[in-house]
Amino acid sequence: MRPPKPLTVADTVLAPVPLDKAFRLINHGPVVLVSSAHGAARNVMAAAWAMPLDFSPPKVAVVVDARSYTRELIEASGEFAFNIPCRNQIEAVLKAGTATGRDGDKFALTGFAAFAGKRVGAPLIEGCVGWLECKVIPEPHNEKRHDLFIAEVLAAQADDRVFRDGRWTMTDDGLRTLHYLSGGTFFATGDTLTIPSE
Amino acid sequence: MRPPKPLTVADTVLAPVPLDKAFRLINHGPVVLVSSAHGAARNVMAAAWAMPLDFSPPKVAVVVDARSYTRELIEASGEFAFNIPCRNQIEAVLKAGTATGRDGDKFALTGFAAFAGKRVGAPLIEGCVGWLECKVIPEPHNEKRHDLFIAEVLAAQADDRVFRDGRWTMTDDGLRTLHYLSGGTFFATGDTLTIPSE
Repeated sequence: MRPPKPLTVADTVLAPVPLDKAFRLINHGPVVLVSSAHGAARNVMAAAWAMPLDFSPPKVAVVVDARSYTRELIEASGEFAFNIPCRNQIEAVLKAGTATGRDGDKFALTGFAAFAGKRVGAPLIEGCVGWLECKVIPEPHNEKRHDLFIAEVLAAQADDRVFRDGRWTMTDDGLRTLHYLSGGTFFATGDTLTIPSE
Repeated sequence: MRPPKPLTVADTVLAPVPLDKAFRLINHGPVVLVSSAHGAARNVMAAAWAMPLDFSPPKVAVVVDARSYTRELIEASGEFAFNIPCRNQIEAVLKAGTATGRDGDKFALTGFAAFAGKRVGAPLIEGCVGWLECKVIPEPHNEKRHDLFIAEVLAAQADDRVFRDGRWTMTDDGLRTLHYLSGGTFFATGDTLTIPSE
């Protein structure tokens, strides 16, 4: 196994995102890293099955498998964060999506470093380009039947180099967001296409 | 207003997608067109808030606003289809996402032509690159509180030119799928990035 590449936040320009624009961080369907913590335990997993659910207050929905370590930490803490990874991090994202935190610390495995959020205890992941801090709205039926968690977004931030004034700019190839197909294959977010209003 | 470009399925190579691979049609988070019908009425809307919810049987989740015409048709019929549009159709997709079927037939407005599905009465849209035919699993709480519909996928098809053996190939720029940001801005699905297994 190759050692993970260092992933640092050195060049990130962290900027708050107004809550009414938070949905735009994931509206285009990127893969997200779901981070969670409870007591001294923490974990990170990749999730393609995540989407906005409401504008105001902003809510999100995400599928978290019943057997996963992340599920245990989310149920214990009632919180998680969406971290929106970029192309620079693709190998670590795949590891976060295939390994389990039950076998050892996934931050060590992936090389991800963490920083503190503003509103939740879940760690935020350096080198990502957007972050949504979320508090679970308990819905036992959805959690049990569909492995579906619904949460309110309490705080949002983005890397100002690529998300500014409520819009992704996707100006840097390494900072493009990712979309997951399966079997180790991703798509980068591609060309920006704007249709003029008539 | 410019007349809609003709959107034909002349070159489409329709192929069935095995149900256990159906999730891969939307796993990367593309915008979908939700088509619906009841009696002689039919409609199509664009939805960015859609995702897979389960593998087997395949299920999907989608947010459909309570005031929308599509909502009325889905509630009356218990069915809908996801049609996965491509770059060639971008202007029509935006129209489908901004106009309402209450003001007039959106197929006429957008130029979309329809063909019959295999398992549901909802029309399938020509020129798209993937189709999922879905039967609603009634969940009154989710529908009322979150405008969230959960459905089982009964049949899936794709354009064999760009989705083959369970994988998107994205070999033709005009047939790339789309991801919606907001305000008339989309991203095309970009570079394919495959991480070799170790």
